[in-house]
Amino acid sequence: MSGGITSTGTMRAAVMREHRLRIEAIAVPRPGPGEVLVRTLACGICGSDLHYLNELERMAAFATRTGVPEVRRLSPRRPVVMGHEFCAELVDFGADTHRRLAVGRRVCSMPIAITADAIHTVGYSHDYPGGYGEYMVLSERLLVPVPDALPTDLASLTEPMAVGRHAVEKANLGDDDVPLVVGCGPVGLAVIAWLRAKGAGPIVAADFSPARRALAEALGADDVVDPAVDSPYTRWQDLAWPPGADRDHPLQSILGPRPRPGVIFDCVGAPGVLNAILEGAMRGTRIVVVGVCMHDDRIEPLLGISKELNVQFVLGYTREEFADTMVALDDGRLQVDAIITGRVGLDDVPDAFRQLATPDAHAKILVQPG
Amino acid sequence: MSGGITSTGTMRAAVMREHRLRIEAIAVPRPGPGEVLVRTLACGICGSDLHYLNELERMAAFATRTGVPEVRRLSPRRPVVMGHEFCAELVDFGADTHRRLAVGRRVCSMPIAITADAIHTVGYSHDYPGGYGEYMVLSERLLVPVPDALPTDLASLTEPMAVGRHAVEKANLGDDDVPLVVGCGPVGLAVIAWLRAKGAGPIVAADFSPARRALAEALGADDVVDPAVDSPYTRWQDLAWPPGADRDHPLQSILGPRPRPGVIFDCVGAPGVLNAILEGAMRGTRIVVVGVCMHDDRIEPLLGISKELNVQFVLGYTREEFADTMVALDDGRLQVDAIITGRVGLDDVPDAFRQLATPDAHAKILVQPG
Repeated sequence: MSGGITSTGTMRAAVMREHRLRIEAIAVPRPGPGEVLVRTLACGICGSDLHYLNELERMAAFATRTGVPEVRRLSPRRPVVMGHEFCAELVDFGADTHRRLAVGRRVCSMPIAITADAIHTVGYSHDYPGGYGEYMVLSERLLVPVPDALPTDLASLTEPMAVGRHAVEKANLGDDDVPLVVGCGPVGLAVIAWLRAKGAGPIVAADFSPARRALAEALGADDVVDPAVDSPYTRWQDLAWPPGADRDHPLQSILGPRPRPGVIFDCVGAPGVLNAILEGAMRGTRIVVVGVCMHDDRIEPLLGISKELNVQFVLGYTREEFADTMVALDDGRLQVDAIITGRVGLDDVPDAFRQLATPDAHAKILVQPG
Repeated sequence: MSGGITSTGTMRAAVMREHRLRIEAIAVPRPGPGEVLVRTLACGICGSDLHYLNELERMAAFATRTGVPEVRRLSPRRPVVMGHEFCAELVDFGADTHRRLAVGRRVCSMPIAITADAIHTVGYSHDYPGGYGEYMVLSERLLVPVPDALPTDLASLTEPMAVGRHAVEKANLGDDDVPLVVGCGPVGLAVIAWLRAKGAGPIVAADFSPARRALAEALGADDVVDPAVDSPYTRWQDLAWPPGADRDHPLQSILGPRPRPGVIFDCVGAPGVLNAILEGAMRGTRIVVVGVCMHDDRIEPLLGISKELNVQFVLGYTREEFADTMVALDDGRLQVDAIITGRVGLDDVPDAFRQLATPDAHAKILVQPG
């Protein structure tokens, strides 16, 4: 290992333990076979991290039922360095590495590390610290080099933007679809940016927060609705139906005209939202659930049945979607600078988590551990 | 109108009023323009009719939210003759009819009547009595003539079997799909019969009732599970995975092998079933909700998210699916005689409803009003 940087063998990190974040000095992780050591340049704070901080036991229990091996073993008593939306700089190589990228090269990676006998979730692991620390260990073969012209901050958006890419992919968008994005936090904004990049529209977006509505507009939403004032579903249906159509005509379903097909992205992830969407949907609407609702939810299945709705739950992205997202950030298909609303050093990570608990203050805060 | 049959102007019918069924003499309906009068030969009792008898107000309230015009006006104080799974005999023609089918010809129809200014739901209407009465009025242009060789009882299964056809269609079955049918009432049996007709399999089916499990086997299920003894989900997954696959290998998701794709049909329609399916599903499973759950339901969205499940709610069938179902009953693709477990006259309709409330006694009871 390159001596100077890690001569003390320790690094600073925002460490989660017993549902609290504290800045501590911990051991620099050591790259094993096929692994590299990287220095974190920037790492976004994700809503999932807020969930984990508050409800780690619930996340671990769920992983036990759904099969994410590393997460199911997480204990609140053992330290975790979170942070999975990172851009980093190559520092050193472990054994059995190909070393095709040079030390100093900027890289991103899906936040997993694949060893001979396990898949580790970087940032949700007792062994693989994430980007809220100065150094990380990553799998060499998962590294995606950052193009020279792409700023580090934007490169760190690859991961959250890939989530939007995947959600839009799973929506199977047709040329004529009218999308509605419910919730304009980072996930909703990623969906809006990709809908815009793919030429879909008009894009309707809804959020109670004025700041988030402004961001939705900046990222490409055509019609932005405050649900406290207007029904997003009414506005969206008005755009889907041909002007002047007699929607309440008793023979409408036979004689037409038909509205354009609708797709709704649930980017909130809170109880009650899915059922509101079932209620507000048009016949045949596809619903893509991207926001992660951690709690039980209540639905009225008859709403789904009577309109033959389709609900697609989505999670994450593929390796190809991740790589293409970085290309899209570089070639300008994605114009998402606006969502970075704050930058903090390690010392201010706990405060940044507190600020993110109130949705109006920020969209994406980047941690810069260096 | 042909005088003899309706000379008194009244007919016998099982009339629903104030959540009770009584056999009464009521006026024979009169065919309007484009309509025909038919004599009911056989009419199956549908689970939906049990819902309507017990909870008509709830059905009407839901229709108000979801847009079925006739149903939203239903009142428990006004008479309704239910019955929408019928085979009938052509008796007379109203004005402006083409009369291409002869009087005496056996016909089926989707249970709707389309007039110049409305769509009426035959059997869920104060104006269009259904098949639990001696006569009905239908739209001439919706009549589907019954092939001479197709027995009347089987022809009356066209409607419930079309429901299965539509559900299987909406499942977008691939060649390699392994289907699981949860619930083997008439809806589940219709799904099983169509899965078999389409060559899908192995078909796993689950029901607590021994009688229904026997029917599931008779209709084509390959592996029939009593959920009180075995997990249907385990049995189904065992069939989907290649023999000997190390499903718990930590690198399984990367190294494979993969299971065959799965599709689960929810044919129960009771609270809790959908969430059990979300829990029992494999990654990427498509879930088709066919059973109508009348009440609120609780789900854990994280189950759907963590496995990227897809939930397709379905209702009814298209006109083409209805017509093709009758062809399939005639040409032997569908072998469903076994599901007819009882035949009653009008006087015994109230008792038949009581018997159907306990799932083990019967699958499909046909009413023969004549």
